[in-house]
Formats: sequence, C-alpha cells, structure tokens
Amino acid sequence: MFSSDFRAEILRRCEKIQAGLRAIGADAALIHTNANLYYTSGRVFNGYAYIPVEGEPHYFVRRPVGLKGDTVHYIHKPEQIPALLSEAGMALPARIALEWDASHGDYVRLSAVFPAAEVLNGSGVMRAARAVKTGYELAQLRESAVKHVEVYRRIGSVYREGMTDIELQIEIERLLRLHGNLGLFRINGQSMEIFMGNVICGDNADAPTPYDFAMGGAGMSCSIPVGANGSLIRPGMTVMVDMCGNFTGYMTDMTRVYSVGELSPLAAGAHRCSIEIHRQLGLMGKPGVAAADLYNRAVDIVNEAGLGDYFMGYTQKAGFVGHGVGIEVNEAPVLAPRSKDVLVENQVIALEPKFVIPHVGAVGIEDTYVVTPDGLQAITDAPVEIAPLL
Amino acid sequence: MFSSDFRAEILRRCEKIQAGLRAIGADAALIHTNANLYYTSGRVFNGYAYIPVEGEPHYFVRRPVGLKGDTVHYIHKPEQIPALLSEAGMALPARIALEWDASHGDYVRLSAVFPAAEVLNGSGVMRAARAVKTGYELAQLRESAVKHVEVYRRIGSVYREGMTDIELQIEIERLLRLHGNLGLFRINGQSMEIFMGNVICGDNADAPTPYDFAMGGAGMSCSIPVGANGSLIRPGMTVMVDMCGNFTGYMTDMTRVYSVGELSPLAAGAHRCSIEIHRQLGLMGKPGVAAADLYNRAVDIVNEAGLGDYFMGYTQKAGFVGHGVGIEVNEAPVLAPRSKDVLVENQVIALEPKFVIPHVGAVGIEDTYVVTPDGLQAITDAPVEIAPLL
Repeated sequence: MFSSDFRAEILRRCEKIQAGLRAIGADAALIHTNANLYYTSGRVFNGYAYIPVEGEPHYFVRRPVGLKGDTVHYIHKPEQIPALLSEAGMALPARIALEWDASHGDYVRLSAVFPAAEVLNGSGVMRAARAVKTGYELAQLRESAVKHVEVYRRIGSVYREGMTDIELQIEIERLLRLHGNLGLFRINGQSMEIFMGNVICGDNADAPTPYDFAMGGAGMSCSIPVGANGSLIRPGMTVMVDMCGNFTGYMTDMTRVYSVGELSPLAAGAHRCSIEIHRQLGLMGKPGVAAADLYNRAVDIVNEAGLGDYFMGYTQKAGFVGHGVGIEVNEAPVLAPRSKDVLVENQVIALEPKFVIPHVGAVGIEDTYVVTPDGLQAITDAPVEIAPLL
Repeated sequence: MFSSDFRAEILRRCEKIQAGLRAIGADAALIHTNANLYYTSGRVFNGYAYIPVEGEPHYFVRRPVGLKGDTVHYIHKPEQIPALLSEAGMALPARIALEWDASHGDYVRLSAVFPAAEVLNGSGVMRAARAVKTGYELAQLRESAVKHVEVYRRIGSVYREGMTDIELQIEIERLLRLHGNLGLFRINGQSMEIFMGNVICGDNADAPTPYDFAMGGAGMSCSIPVGANGSLIRPGMTVMVDMCGNFTGYMTDMTRVYSVGELSPLAAGAHRCSIEIHRQLGLMGKPGVAAADLYNRAVDIVNEAGLGDYFMGYTQKAGFVGHGVGIEVNEAPVLAPRSKDVLVENQVIALEPKFVIPHVGAVGIEDTYVVTPDGLQAITDAPVEIAPLL
C-alpha cells in the first residue's frame, strides 16, 4: 500500500483520528470516501480503511488489483470485513464511527456490517484530524502553492484584446494543466460543484449563484450556473481569477485581480481594503484565536472603510471570509460569524475578503496561509496589486 | 423558475417520477442533489424540489436570490417546508421518498422535516424516470453529440510528434472547452471521480485503477489514479481518447482510437471485433430486450473471436459493456451480466466494448445510442476506424 517511510506519516495522521475516536467513545472508524481514503492511506482506492482506536489501520480493497501490505485485505463486499478483522486477531468494535457525509445508502449497508455495534458520526472526527496538517502535508501544499503562483504570473501572457472571460479562463486552464495541475477540484458535500475554478469579469461578478462560494457569475449553463458567462473583457472592468490549485492532491486557493484600463476609485479602494484585511488578520491569526473573531474583525475593517454594501457580494452575499483547504477546498476551520472553530497551529486556511463593485466587477485577493504562533504565514506568495492586462 | 414553454417539459418529467412514487406507495419526493434538481426544475439551485404524487412540483430555494414562480418558496432551512406546503393548500405526506444517494447527514435532517412520515428510498424512482429521455432531453443529447464529434474530428490537428499522453489530453481539453464543453463530468455516487475524461496510450491502458471505468491508466497522482500518466506516444502504440461530452448539461460518451505507425494484427482485429459488437448489439437493442442479454451477446462475439483475455481490460477487467448516459455518465440501464434492467424506448446508452492489448494499448470504440423500436440509433456519428496521428 505504501513505503515504510510513508507508513510513519500515515500513523501520524491516524493518531489524530484515534484521539478523535476516543473523544466520541468509538472503537474504530470505517472510512470509504475518496478524500478520507487518500488521507488515511496516501492513495485513492475502491474499498474501506478501518482505523481502530489503538493500532494500525487495515485496508479492505476491491480495486485496483495489486496493492500490497500486511494490513491490506482484498474483498468483494464490505460484509467480509468482520471475519477478516477476526482473522487478523482484532476485536470487533462495539461502537463504530461511519462517515455521515457519505451516502445514506452506504450508511445503511455499512451499519449492517457490524450488526451488534452502535453507529456513531465519524465525519467530525475526520474533519478535525484533516484540518491540522502534518509536515508532509504542508510540503505538499507548498508545492501546489509554488506552481499556482507560477501560473498566475503568466496570466498576462495568454490574454489577448477582445477575449471573453471564458476564452481567457480556457487559456488559464491549459496553463495550469501544463504546469501539472490535476484538474480535479475536490469539494466536501454534494451541494457545491465547480469545474476548475472561476474567471469573472465585470457585472457578471454580481450574478447570484446557488453555491456558497465567495463570488458569483451566471456561468455558461443552468446545469452549472457559476462563473464565466461569455462576457467580453472591456476597459474599466476587473477580471477576477480564482482557479484551482490542486497540483499534488492538496490544493491551494488563490485569487488575483486583473484589469483593462482605468478602474474607478471605489474599486481601487475596495481592493486596498482587502489587502489591509489580509494584513490585519495575518497578524491576528494565531493558535487559540476564534475563527468568528477573524470574521468579525474583517467586517469591522470593511465597515470602517464604508464598504459594507460591496463586501462578499453585492446583490447576494457570502457568509464567510475564509476556510480551511487541503485535500478538499472547504475544510475546517470556517471563518464565519457563527463558527465555533478555534485556530490550531498548522491549520491551513484561505482568506478571501472580496468585494463586488457594480459596473466594475470583483476586487480583492485570496491567499492560502499556515497558522503559526507568529500569525498567518502566506504560502501563495505573489504580488497583491491589481495587474493590468495589456 | 422557468418559462411557460419549459413548464410542460418539467411536468412530463414529473409525470414519470409520479408514476414511480405511486409504484412504491409514496405521497411525495423531496429532492436535493444537483443532478435531480436540474432534472426536476431545469436548473441547479441550492434547496429542494418537492414532487407530490399528484400536482405540480414546488421549489424551496435557499440560493440564488431572484428565482420567480408560483411554486417557488424562499427558505433558510428545510424545516420551513411543511408550513409552506400547508400554506399552499397541500396535504403533508404520510410517506415521503428521499434520495438515498445523498448524504446520510442530509437524510437524518430531512427525515425529521416530516416527523410523522414514513421515509422511503426515492433514488430508484429518480433513476428510472431519468433513464427514459423526453424529446427535449434527446435534443440536448444530440446537441452534445454534434459538438463531441466535431472536436474528435480535430484531434489530429493538435497532435505533435513527441507528445506525451497528458500533453495531447490537455490540447483536447482546450478544444472541447473552446467548442462549449462545460467541463463538469457528473457521476452518480462518491466512489468514482474523473476530471474531463481520459487519454490513454500504450501499456498505461493496462494499469489497474480503483474506479469501475472500462479502461485503466495509472494517472498523474495517487490522489486521482486514473488515465494519462505522462507516457510518450510512440510508434506501434494506440492512443484511446474517451473525453467528456457535456456540452448542454446532458453528456454524450464517445471513444475513438488513434495510432502512430503500424499496429499489431491482434490489435487491429480486436478493434474490428469492437465494431462488430456495436453492429450486432445495435440491431438487437430494442425496447424489451434485457440489458444482460446484450452483455452476454457481446461476450459471445468476443469469445468466438478468441479475444476473451483482452476484453474490457487485461490485468483487471471491467464488468460491463455499456451504461445509460444523460445528466450523469452512469445512469440506467447497466449492460452487465447480473443487470435486471430491460431496455425501454428513448433510453440513451453508451456501448463501449474495448480491449487492452499488451505492448500496444487499448482499442475499440464507444458510441452513444438512443433505444428505438428499430434498434439502437447512434447519435455520436463519426468514423469508427483507428485514425493515424501524423
């Protein structure tokens, strides 16, 4: 399944899961969503990871053929798991944690795999473990960040006068892919969908979407109504680029703004306000700080600047200013007014204070940070000013 | 929510759902996955579609702001639905169908919205309704097919000698997007993930994947281990192109094979066998025919040709030869040995009899068909021979 070097990394992750299992009184977790399989094994496979509250994880694999390891068991169906655990000398769980963010159909089937066991909600345990990154995971995120920044540096080179937003987006998609972007944009939950990210120009930024993303956009189809809508990029408009940073299985989140010609003073001022929010939250964002306090501080800065009408949307507003990122784009913590999250060292969060200015478009930047004792450390390190498209 | 023209289309779809609800004894379905919201309203929104067993669907919308219609109700949370139904003069359901393919967490919450109601599994009802396409849906699929074919016709123009599989794939992705492809590849269930499809060359076709796709490929990362792996495209190899056909919210599925230089007689013969399977299954695939019989007929043709070792994979085999397509790529019916599905007029299915030939790569074609009384009618109409890349 993995090399002996990587085994230590997997055990570090499982220790965090096991602490969470102890806290809810579970004897084990049975995991089968792709994001959590990747986290608990280092690869996606079709099957299940069984993490006992003490000891090593076991893997029950349907596909692919050929995975090896002392704790790898090939199965046809999950009902085989208890007998294989017993064969491996392991006690069967009296209290089993399942993923409540997986399908109800799966839940019904897996609940019956250990008929005598009480079933607990394991999704919170997994979410909390994954929120605090290991050194290995931070390195993966930094590698994504370097490539993410490198592609954004080249965006000017693919712009041509007379392009639409979607035409520019397609060229940025190609640049990202040529730099090793995996394309896949993993999102927890079923209500949000996105292709490779969004390029939004002018008033399309104000088109409300069904998704709880920071920015809008009517999209090209009612089947995925978000993002670029074919608008011509014209003087006086901003172009906000918020594209996928998944180069390693761990994704960074980064937004920069480009413009053609002069922007209104209101737009320029709102962009500066976003940069100022990053600066202040960067100093404030230390372990132990409440995520809601960060959100509230951002709102205070916005209101002091008189920009409340435009913050996080104009016609429709998003209710957060930042979120954890990692294997998925919407991890813990959430920087929102009613968030109960408290920052922990080595969490990785994206801050995205953005504004929608009517007749201009969206402004503001997004960067990905590591929570450190000295505050937030940016890993998507790139110029923050609005960049002219020539 | 939609125009009065489109209302008739929505009611046609709801009639099929309502017939399914009557069959399981449900009074209503409460729907909230994006694919089913798109089906029942014509657009994706954040919220719920409530389809009573008699009468019009009602929509309970959180986002986006601004949707209009007599049966559109804005809500903050699903617990508001019963009171709004009562206000609209509708009886509350005694038996409510929910989506078992949505998350267990959602199931728990929605089960409590109608505390007195018995909860039924509505996923099968939705799947059966969606499998049989309306005239409008067939037109959407035909529109996707025309664009899909047009892009495949241009694949030769983006190939350059010395390319890797992923480099060619990136250029095909760009071509698809420039022709209006929406990018998003909708798949039912959480165990399958894909970016925009696969380009697989040479022996990478034989690399087993975790996913139940027809073809393999190691991929570029353990986080999404499928498809192109950076292999250089060399003489004697095939390049199989199986890329996303989602141009309209309804996706066609289509595979063609390209080659550089001469291929082995075994590979050429297996490709001819795939074409012959399409021909015979095309004649056989009429309403009332069992999907399993189509699968078995394909296996018979393969075995008569002595190609069983290579069929649907070499090291690891896929257990089906075709599947329904529409809003998602894995709809009903499934053409597999233990399938209970029977073909129905106006189902849309993709047939993909493929072979993996060691040291050469994958061969065989995939086309999307409408089930008609005269047999399967191809909508992805394009040359079937292996096309040389010059």
